[in-house]
Amino acid sequence: MNAESIRHLFQEVRRGGLSPDEAVERLRHLPFEDLGFAKVDHHRALRAGMPEVIFGEGKTPAQTAQIFARLAKHGKNVLATRADHKQFEAVKKKVRAAEYRELARAIVVKRDPRSYGKGVIAVVSAGTSDIPVAEEAVVTAELMGNEVEHFYDVGVAGIHRLLANREALTRAQVVIVCAGMEGALPSVVGGLVGVPVIAVPTSVGYGASFQGLTALLGMMNSCASNVSVVNIDNGFGAGYVASLINRLG
Amino acid sequence: MNAESIRHLFQEVRRGGLSPDEAVERLRHLPFEDLGFAKVDHHRALRAGMPEVIFGEGKTPAQTAQIFARLAKHGKNVLATRADHKQFEAVKKKVRAAEYRELARAIVVKRDPRSYGKGVIAVVSAGTSDIPVAEEAVVTAELMGNEVEHFYDVGVAGIHRLLANREALTRAQVVIVCAGMEGALPSVVGGLVGVPVIAVPTSVGYGASFQGLTALLGMMNSCASNVSVVNIDNGFGAGYVASLINRLG
Amino acid sequence: MNAESIRHLFQEVRRGGLSPDEAVERLRHLPFEDLGFAKVDHHRALRAGMPEVIFGEGKTPAQTAQIFARLAKHGKNVLATRADHKQFEAVKKKVRAAEYRELARAIVVKRDPRSYGKGVIAVVSAGTSDIPVAEEAVVTAELMGNEVEHFYDVGVAGIHRLLANREALTRAQVVIVCAGMEGALPSVVGGLVGVPVIAVPTSVGYGASFQGLTALLGMMNSCASNVSVVNIDNGFGAGYVASLINRLG
Amino acid sequence: MNAESIRHLFQEVRRGGLSPDEAVERLRHLPFEDLGFAKVDHHRALRAGMPEVIFGEGKTPAQTAQIFARLAKHGKNVLATRADHKQFEAVKKKVRAAEYRELARAIVVKRDPRSYGKGVIAVVSAGTSDIPVAEEAVVTAELMGNEVEHFYDVGVAGIHRLLANREALTRAQVVIVCAGMEGALPSVVGGLVGVPVIAVPTSVGYGASFQGLTALLGMMNSCASNVSVVNIDNGFGAGYVASLINRLG
Amino acid sequence: MNAESIRHLFQEVRRGGLSPDEAVERLRHLPFEDLGFAKVDHHRALRAGMPEVIFGEGKTPAQTAQIFARLAKHGKNVLATRADHKQFEAVKKKVRAAEYRELARAIVVKRDPRSYGKGVIAVVSAGTSDIPVAEEAVVTAELMGNEVEHFYDVGVAGIHRLLANREALTRAQVVIVCAGMEGALPSVVGGLVGVPVIAVPTSVGYGASFQGLTALLGMMNSCASNVSVVNIDNGFGAGYVASLINRLG
Amino acid sequence: MNAESIRHLFQEVRRGGLSPDEAVERLRHLPFEDLGFAKVDHHRALRAGMPEVIFGEGKTPAQTAQIFARLAKHGKNVLATRADHKQFEAVKKKVRAAEYRELARAIVVKRDPRSYGKGVIAVVSAGTSDIPVAEEAVVTAELMGNEVEHFYDVGVAGIHRLLANREALTRAQVVIVCAGMEGALPSVVGGLVGVPVIAVPTSVGYGASFQGLTALLGMMNSCASNVSVVNIDNGFGAGYVASLINRLG
Amino acid sequence: MNAESIRHLFQEVRRGGLSPDEAVERLRHLPFEDLGFAKVDHHRALRAGMPEVIFGEGKTPAQTAQIFARLAKHGKNVLATRADHKQFEAVKKKVRAAEYRELARAIVVKRDPRSYGKGVIAVVSAGTSDIPVAEEAVVTAELMGNEVEHFYDVGVAGIHRLLANREALTRAQVVIVCAGMEGALPSVVGGLVGVPVIAVPTSVGYGASFQGLTALLGMMNSCASNVSVVNIDNGFGAGYVASLINRLG
Amino acid sequence: MNAESIRHLFQEVRRGGLSPDEAVERLRHLPFEDLGFAKVDHHRALRAGMPEVIFGEGKTPAQTAQIFARLAKHGKNVLATRADHKQFEAVKKKVRAAEYRELARAIVVKRDPRSYGKGVIAVVSAGTSDIPVAEEAVVTAELMGNEVEHFYDVGVAGIHRLLANREALTRAQVVIVCAGMEGALPSVVGGLVGVPVIAVPTSVGYGASFQGLTALLGMMNSCASNVSVVNIDNGFGAGYVASLINRLG
Repeated sequence: MNAESIRHLFQEVRRGGLSPDEAVERLRHLPFEDLGFAKVDHHRALRAGMPEVIFGEGKTPAQTAQIFARLAKHGKNVLATRADHKQFEAVKKKVRAAEYRELARAIVVKRDPRSYGKGVIAVVSAGTSDIPVAEEAVVTAELMGNEVEHFYDVGVAGIHRLLANREALTRAQVVIVCAGMEGALPSVVGGLVGVPVIAVPTSVGYGASFQGLTALLGMMNSCASNVSVVNIDNGFGAGYVASLINRLG
Repeated sequence: MNAESIRHLFQEVRRGGLSPDEAVERLRHLPFEDLGFAKVDHHRALRAGMPEVIFGEGKTPAQTAQIFARLAKHGKNVLATRADHKQFEAVKKKVRAAEYRELARAIVVKRDPRSYGKGVIAVVSAGTSDIPVAEEAVVTAELMGNEVEHFYDVGVAGIHRLLANREALTRAQVVIVCAGMEGALPSVVGGLVGVPVIAVPTSVGYGASFQGLTALLGMMNSCASNVSVVNIDNGFGAGYVASLINRLG
Repeated sequence: MNAESIRHLFQEVRRGGLSPDEAVERLRHLPFEDLGFAKVDHHRALRAGMPEVIFGEGKTPAQTAQIFARLAKHGKNVLATRADHKQFEAVKKKVRAAEYRELARAIVVKRDPRSYGKGVIAVVSAGTSDIPVAEEAVVTAELMGNEVEHFYDVGVAGIHRLLANREALTRAQVVIVCAGMEGALPSVVGGLVGVPVIAVPTSVGYGASFQGLTALLGMMNSCASNVSVVNIDNGFGAGYVASLINRLG
Repeated sequence: MNAESIRHLFQEVRRGGLSPDEAVERLRHLPFEDLGFAKVDHHRALRAGMPEVIFGEGKTPAQTAQIFARLAKHGKNVLATRADHKQFEAVKKKVRAAEYRELARAIVVKRDPRSYGKGVIAVVSAGTSDIPVAEEAVVTAELMGNEVEHFYDVGVAGIHRLLANREALTRAQVVIVCAGMEGALPSVVGGLVGVPVIAVPTSVGYGASFQGLTALLGMMNSCASNVSVVNIDNGFGAGYVASLINRLG
Repeated sequence: MNAESIRHLFQEVRRGGLSPDEAVERLRHLPFEDLGFAKVDHHRALRAGMPEVIFGEGKTPAQTAQIFARLAKHGKNVLATRADHKQFEAVKKKVRAAEYRELARAIVVKRDPRSYGKGVIAVVSAGTSDIPVAEEAVVTAELMGNEVEHFYDVGVAGIHRLLANREALTRAQVVIVCAGMEGALPSVVGGLVGVPVIAVPTSVGYGASFQGLTALLGMMNSCASNVSVVNIDNGFGAGYVASLINRLG
Repeated sequence: MNAESIRHLFQEVRRGGLSPDEAVERLRHLPFEDLGFAKVDHHRALRAGMPEVIFGEGKTPAQTAQIFARLAKHGKNVLATRADHKQFEAVKKKVRAAEYRELARAIVVKRDPRSYGKGVIAVVSAGTSDIPVAEEAVVTAELMGNEVEHFYDVGVAGIHRLLANREALTRAQVVIVCAGMEGALPSVVGGLVGVPVIAVPTSVGYGASFQGLTALLGMMNSCASNVSVVNIDNGFGAGYVASLINRLG
Repeated sequence: MNAESIRHLFQEVRRGGLSPDEAVERLRHLPFEDLGFAKVDHHRALRAGMPEVIFGEGKTPAQTAQIFARLAKHGKNVLATRADHKQFEAVKKKVRAAEYRELARAIVVKRDPRSYGKGVIAVVSAGTSDIPVAEEAVVTAELMGNEVEHFYDVGVAGIHRLLANREALTRAQVVIVCAGMEGALPSVVGGLVGVPVIAVPTSVGYGASFQGLTALLGMMNSCASNVSVVNIDNGFGAGYVASLINRLG
Repeated sequence: MNAESIRHLFQEVRRGGLSPDEAVERLRHLPFEDLGFAKVDHHRALRAGMPEVIFGEGKTPAQTAQIFARLAKHGKNVLATRADHKQFEAVKKKVRAAEYRELARAIVVKRDPRSYGKGVIAVVSAGTSDIPVAEEAVVTAELMGNEVEHFYDVGVAGIHRLLANREALTRAQVVIVCAGMEGALPSVVGGLVGVPVIAVPTSVGYGASFQGLTALLGMMNSCASNVSVVNIDNGFGAGYVASLINRLG
């Protein structure tokens, strides 16, 4: 049921084909969320530039390709995260324009060329092993129409490499920081910039890193007040949140 | 907004005082859950016999008494769980009919004398220390209009005490089992009866009992298929779920 | 030892072939549970319609087929959960009537066509990845003689999809809710219905989902009082408990 | 060392009182961060409207008052979180303008009347017990020059109360959601709005809530992509991050 | 129902006052565990020398005294563990012969002077803080009629103190080892002796000792094959198991 | 340095070739444990009947065979636990007498036919999946010269199967109980017998069984006082401890 | 048995009062560690400057004073950690020279004025709340005869404060770093210096800091290779290890 | 920017080509860490003898070889840890001098023959399964120019094997101790020596060893004050820290 059918209801009442009581009764049995159309326009605006997203892990190449092709028809950007080469090959056969972003393990097709972000999103990673997660954030933010700058391998044990990029970092509207092991980098970055920092714990490390739990807990306890955290290895989520923030900027 | 005001809307349209388009527009801006009235009667039936509940822990005597008195005006049964003597005294001054159920640490006032349960709810506890939680379940079930039978101190290390009550247990429509320490009792009871068993881990124990976590985990892994579990020390929840089941019986 | 042999004992005493003291002595050495026969009929009634169940995981196709065939001889419904295609093929060769329920990863043979449930069991899942667990619950409930209705992909981040099914949900006698990740769905469903909700945490998610532990803990802390919980991915247990409840309805 | 002293160094070189080599040598031994003054202006802008903050917990009334009075001299807003009545009384004697925000357990003095936020910050709480944390976020955001709207006691088990505020929520630039127990609310709110959601797990609950850990883990696994998380009970952090985001809006 | 009443049943059948069928019917309705008398003598033998035990923690002095006095009437040894001075004073008024074992925090009355143990039980503790738990084991074993020798403050960081007692240790029939912190002592002792070692983790330590969990886990992983473990601080359990073993020796 | 060389030292002193002071000096620099030979005979007695043991997991067939063959030369029983068919084949080529105990996944060679146990060791398992661990205990106990009786598939959800074996269980000198999932069986068995019970948690189960951790914690909290616990899946350790106890019996 | 008695043994052999065989036999039955005297001198050297240490927590003032006074007689430095004012007052009455180090919560008496350290030990703390732990390390190191320099409140969120002390830090022989919350500081310091870093997690923080566990895990995963870790709040241990290292320097 | 360019700046000011104010302005915009050159020489000294290190795990043979070859050009020692045969073969083709240290799973090339250590580093392992981790420590220490002595298979359950090496151990300047399972060895070793002990938990064990977590926690709680701990299986880190300490010795 949509606006049209409700209007129709009123018109029938107007025409006398339906008594007000009968109309109330009909309305009573409608799934109520159909009346939520009032929000459609509003949401449509908010959702402009949001890519369609597929979580690739655990899907067969055939499944991935089928879903990707269907979503690609809507004219929006499409992103398949955690996808491998085989999944990409299957997608490529159905969607010519699809590209594989190797480092990010992502398949993308970009249909919407518009820019939605107001400033720059900085993506920082502690070590080279964190790059896949960082790149997932980069790809997500780019597909959501943002300018992205990245700073890799600037972990806290070699603080000078990070500090060398301080100027550039302070120009960003929002900063994403990916780190595994002890997860200390977001606190240091948080202290250097005056904007929101989205921390992404990664599953990089061994032993007592517990597949990213140690980094996650560290980030939750950041002594920098401008840090909030997303799930382990959730580069997509970080890119998504950062993009929403950057639209405001 | 309620059914009446929507009917009013239709009547205005009928009268011609409002065009269908205008009516749609008005509807569009209503908080949509106001249209949920269709469910009121249905829910009212479902909610008959449900007590009003106050979680007493952390509330001052004054706060408890105030809330209790307000709820007691609606003519429904009222239950304050995890309440101490001081809270009861404060309540008693405002609500004469209130009673204190010592073992259950609960304040109750029973306004609705009807019986809602179809069969008997059995409440079983492993040790004497589990009794407060078990009694919370008993009180809750009684206030929800059920006949309750209890079997205390029948833990698995003295299996004969439990087995001596097997006949009685098999007559119940639903069984609540409260146990701390290793939390083994629900599995044994589950094997003896053919009805749903609600397991309540208690925080009884020390050392590696981890305030009930060990019992909780044990119950989640019950080798009896008719067991489901509620939170640690949640006698109220168990009594509530059991009462809902017993209404069906 | 059964009723017959005990009767024989009394008859020997009657005949004088055995003194009362000798009879007591003989009784003394019998495994006592042989006297439990008094409960047999009672239990038989309770157990009517209960399927024979095989936990398929970790069993070879040959083992699965052998057990399945043996159980299928009793004229009861047989259910093998967590079974793959190879196991099914092996079973199929021995039990012609066996069917494979792909989504549920279950092998079933239905011998008992009777209906045991009084109302409808609703099975709800948060995401598409939760469907295998949900389907295991569905198959279990169906094999136990219940009418089942399912509502998939109605997770809390798109609350309107769930609300669109509110009417249907409120008609169920008992609701099973399967969810991974944050495991929030049972609380929302619990608030919408007035019947028992069986929550099943699933191992869906990554990072801090800890293979379903996060969902399990969330469900244990549900703010809806009508929720109880079974083990992670335990669709079978949920279907079993729900079936027991539905027999009462 | 500051800009002035470096200028002095150059002047001495200009005058010939120091050779370039000697100047380099002197510079070599300066603590290098003294050269960081280049960022002062930039940071000052960023830091405008940032309150001075005291973490009150564990501090004596005397300590609190002393620190508060010192910070209050700078003309900036001052905020003492997790402070009790005794701490407030001590502060009040030294800083006349100080006020106690009871619900938030915060002492504040507002010196800077400017508005820094571009839109509205919405603060949502699941239950009444979450209000102290929510109010800490409210106070923080207000002291950082934001307009704040709050929506309390709208937990997921009574989803209609939340939905009744949907319109209002969608008008916010950023939403803070505080919830204990299962921590499900941020996911539902995240699905309703198209802006960043800051989730604050609270230590509300008992048993398997583990002082907020369950809520924290649930929020980290939110199925809504616009959710990021701060530490348990960290209302201040949420208010701080939200204020930074709102400045961009 | 006991042996006598069953004999009576047979006598009635013998007398013709009851047909065999009627007798079977009567038997059928008896709680079956009443037939467990066959084991009484056997168990009585096993249970000779077992003290009556009260877990003192959480009980009021009045409660403790009442239970203690009741149990003390049976002529068996009585042991109240985790009891303080106030509880002892209350007990003392009712049971003259009661004694307080300060170090063990135990109240005891010894009625049964017999010796049940075949050899010596050695009780070893790592540090002085572990002594209360060790003494609980000592008291328990003594009350169960064993000769006990103790070796305190012989932790692994001063291995020579332990080794100085090697000869004495190797003469024991069973060894109890109490240790907190890293819980390493049972492994070393296990390697020195050829008899069963009962390890008791204690809650001694701080930080990452997690109230004894670290010691517990360490002991579970002992590289000595003759070690088994009881709960944290469970000196009573260790004394009990050791006493059972020593009876065999 | 051995007894001979020390004797030599004394002889030199006797001969006058060395002053007492010089002898003391020489002794002072000897690794002191060389004087530990005094214990050899004593230990040899204790160690009689102890098998040589190889932990097979992670070893190649070649490594296993080489170690096995070397140990088999000493005339003692040899046991390789957690060994597969390939390892057995490699061993068999070198040690003709070696046998493979399929259920226990153990390779054994029995050289010492003597009996060392005084009574019977009972080995109990909850489910069929626990049998490999139970059998490891059986094989270990047998190789250490004990008579072993086993009781499998007698889990607590079908308590009658366990009770049917009560008589037999009470005849054992020591009981080993293997159980996964909720690990409840040792408590029930502990209540039925008056002898030491060695509990072995197994990694059987899924979801919240956490590879045996839940069973381990449950067993640590057993409400039966005669239970002590060994590591998860440590059938060998249980068999070893039980054998030591049974030697005393 | 000591050197003297062994010499006596040799003398008896020399005199002919004992045959070499008899002497060997006697030696055979001596507790072997009595022969450990050979190491006394060696150890004495190592132990020079080691203070006598009392762990004050949980001891009464009387107990603390008694132990302190006894140890103070040996002429060595004495240190009581985690001691409060009352304990100090009791000590002071018995040991005039005792001093209370307020910040470190330590009672000390310095008898040995010698310097044992070769270089400087730097003690760094992240926040002001970490100072008690840091001061415990300082006092320990000072009592062990070291020169100590401290750098407080130089946490990673204000990295410039740390960097301002870089020069000073690089002059230290060994660095102790105390930090709670996310525990990031040791990694940053580790990257700045080329010497061993001893990391001390503190229990500072709230929520997901888990009383220091998060900091501990973070430090274990430090990306700086020169970091090793001691227990939570173990300032004493850090000071002790650092002192041992500094003696080598 | 380096010293040269700063000197250039001063020279320009000297020449009058730049006013002091302009110079300050230029300096203001330089990335400040470029001024850190003052430390270069100092650091160079500290870093002499430090090998270049590659973490081999997860890298392809091609990647490993490429990085190894590049680093090998600098004339320093190169170490690839956690490397397998395939990686070595790839490296060998590019770097002739590379050797494979089988037990340590390490590829090394030694270019710098100098000795940097002052004393001996002792490496101790509990069991044979800990040897790979121990050997990683050995190789690391050797490549950093140290003399290393190792003591393997001296676990605490056979304490005499450890004690037999006491003399040798006490000669070391620093001791590394690797142990899995209960991780008790560092405490015992710590008590025997008067020098720093670096403890390395290994992932050796099963069940409740939790891949080394149990050993790690045990080591953190060591009752020996001279023990500090590195990450699970982190032989490299232990070797690195020990080498730094040994340079001081």
